[in-house]
Amino acid sequence: MIHASICTIGNEILIGQVVDTNSSRLAAALEEAGIRVTRMLSIGDDRKEILDNLRNELSLSDIVITTGGLGPTKDDITKGVLAELSGSTGFVEHAGQLSIIHDILHRRGLDMLEANRAQAQVPDRCEVIENRLGTAPVMVFRFPENSFGATLYALPGVPFEAVGAIPDIMRDIRNHYPLEPIMHHSLMVYGLAESALSEQIAPWEDALPEEMHLAYLPHPLTGIRLRLSMYGGIREDQKKKVEEQILRLKEILGNKVYSEEDDTLEATVGRLLKGAGKTLSAAESCTGGEISHLITLVPGSSAYYLGSVTSYAVSVKERVLGVPPETIEKAGVVSSEVAAAMAEGVRKLTGSDYAVSTTGLAGPDGDAFNPVGTVWIGVAGPKGTKTLKRQFRNDRERNIQRFAAEALNFLRLTLLDDLKG
Amino acid sequence: MIHASICTIGNEILIGQVVDTNSSRLAAALEEAGIRVTRMLSIGDDRKEILDNLRNELSLSDIVITTGGLGPTKDDITKGVLAELSGSTGFVEHAGQLSIIHDILHRRGLDMLEANRAQAQVPDRCEVIENRLGTAPVMVFRFPENSFGATLYALPGVPFEAVGAIPDIMRDIRNHYPLEPIMHHSLMVYGLAESALSEQIAPWEDALPEEMHLAYLPHPLTGIRLRLSMYGGIREDQKKKVEEQILRLKEILGNKVYSEEDDTLEATVGRLLKGAGKTLSAAESCTGGEISHLITLVPGSSAYYLGSVTSYAVSVKERVLGVPPETIEKAGVVSSEVAAAMAEGVRKLTGSDYAVSTTGLAGPDGDAFNPVGTVWIGVAGPKGTKTLKRQFRNDRERNIQRFAAEALNFLRLTLLDDLKG
Repeated sequence: MIHASICTIGNEILIGQVVDTNSSRLAAALEEAGIRVTRMLSIGDDRKEILDNLRNELSLSDIVITTGGLGPTKDDITKGVLAELSGSTGFVEHAGQLSIIHDILHRRGLDMLEANRAQAQVPDRCEVIENRLGTAPVMVFRFPENSFGATLYALPGVPFEAVGAIPDIMRDIRNHYPLEPIMHHSLMVYGLAESALSEQIAPWEDALPEEMHLAYLPHPLTGIRLRLSMYGGIREDQKKKVEEQILRLKEILGNKVYSEEDDTLEATVGRLLKGAGKTLSAAESCTGGEISHLITLVPGSSAYYLGSVTSYAVSVKERVLGVPPETIEKAGVVSSEVAAAMAEGVRKLTGSDYAVSTTGLAGPDGDAFNPVGTVWIGVAGPKGTKTLKRQFRNDRERNIQRFAAEALNFLRLTLLDDLKG
Repeated sequence: MIHASICTIGNEILIGQVVDTNSSRLAAALEEAGIRVTRMLSIGDDRKEILDNLRNELSLSDIVITTGGLGPTKDDITKGVLAELSGSTGFVEHAGQLSIIHDILHRRGLDMLEANRAQAQVPDRCEVIENRLGTAPVMVFRFPENSFGATLYALPGVPFEAVGAIPDIMRDIRNHYPLEPIMHHSLMVYGLAESALSEQIAPWEDALPEEMHLAYLPHPLTGIRLRLSMYGGIREDQKKKVEEQILRLKEILGNKVYSEEDDTLEATVGRLLKGAGKTLSAAESCTGGEISHLITLVPGSSAYYLGSVTSYAVSVKERVLGVPPETIEKAGVVSSEVAAAMAEGVRKLTGSDYAVSTTGLAGPDGDAFNPVGTVWIGVAGPKGTKTLKRQFRNDRERNIQRFAAEALNFLRLTLLDDLKG
């Protein structure tokens, strides 16, 4: 098995100013390719620290990936240290990256300075993978057998650029290392806690052939991603075997499965609506705009999403959404009746085909009738209105996320029901 | 200077399933106390890896903090390995933590299992700091001079619990290590890029006394946190010196400073509204609910926030917010006129004192009239309506964040103007 280390370089991480998200993205990509990440490391912009730590990682791992320290300012010293480490005798200018730098500056209306031009210069012992998203190129150092016998990839630290470089790096790794072929298939599942899901699929999981492995990847907004991996081959008969297992798993889980790729509930709801030519609106109380925010994060959502009303005050529920004051007085603000009236109100107001609503208590406090973490969800559509109650036990921010995810899932199930016939 | 290492233990981090946020929070707390974090490390749930890496960190640092690997399941092996590392001869039950475990299970309506009870057992060579937020206690191992001469703090990996333990750990560190007293004072600044801010305050920064140090801590939603630190004392005359410098800095930056503690724009706007007894509503197009989401993340926001309309579709802008169709036709959807009409429309609809609005292009594409990243912001209030145009160059998600932050800041400046008289 191929072993890898990931190393971030930069003082901003060691003082807690920046959370390192690059390492996690790199690790996920390496793991999917069957490479074992043994260590992640964060060190400062210090020559000796960089040299000592990278020497150590190169002696222990087959692949070392660094991010950061490649900027144009004087505290970014990684490139010089890598030149030293690799025994480079000087720097050479990379024409391709220089041309990219030129284009980027031109688009921003800036002139090329010496510091910009220097970004295209790399140690003569490295290969370059061009970085089209920024000014610092990706550098590849292949250390011969008599010195480490390992490969070092140096990536820029800007997350957008580091993540953008992952496909190029993975391609290079595949070209140079004998990776065991692995087939992955994902199922997105919503509506079961990890423990309940694990129990429900235990008989299926226990009967999996030895060369297949299942991973649980949970997330508060998207539920659980189940990833089935098949090691040792991607022949046609093996593909068939994986497909058979996935089919069986889908039968067990039914409509709790919402997608067969890495996905979100809001994108799934969007595809259902778009496919059926239907539109959506939302009326949010306790979620305060989060549902609308999630829906509109999906590019192209304007094709089916008309808009929403956040009715935080009772007066807005009554005046804008037309919830009858006597309903609020009789049933309480956090109730099935108010959730239904809100969904119906915003559906009428916007003229959408479907509407989803929330009314509840995100925290920090409950009220006289309901504990904190209570939410009523409504969905109104051409076939009527339905409501659903849920109870969570989290802090304010997490409750808002869980309420929004539950609402999107309730909407998804309603759309599935309505559209199947 | 005291040196520290932070080490997360858990396979879930090495396969990229979880982003490690604990290390960043711990590093920030250590740095504020004047402790230098030299390395952060993530390793797997493997006995030899844990032993080798912790021995190495303990020999290099004064303080080693670990998070993770303390759960009740069989893959969590950290506690046993720490017993071995510390030369403990057995485990003892900690009565205080056992009582906390009992309370937590009772609140969840669960019985105490053997695996739960085992959580209260710790190696006999450690001291316990009780963890009131979860079942696994914090363990403190004080290694004598002849073996490392360092202290190891073992924290649970659940972020809520790890972050909750930081004050206890910092207190213990202060009691055992001679830390140089440091005084910190923060200013939250919005409306200047880091480079422009740096240029504007350069004469002030260059004239700072040697014992004072300024740090820039930028964030897309909250602007830049400037932190002035004074090393070497917290005597009255030194406090006065810091206050004088802060006063001068505030004079230079004027209303670009929005708070004197770690803070957000939405909380600041909330305090202004609450103090003046005024209410707010929002009309969002391109921000899609993000402004409303941010405002309602603030506990107690229902005291001043009435609600919002997300008018994604033109029809909602016209029918719900009352934007005249001829205004849209003449000026275009992304225009000063439409931003103004949206703010005025939602103000009238909800009956709020103030209203903020956005209309723009978050991406991925621009339209025939405006490039992607364009936004018009409107603020309507008792003294009239104002609009503001901004142009950014980010991806969809980042554009939405920047639009929302700009809108909240424009609202803040308007409130300051209106309420000062």
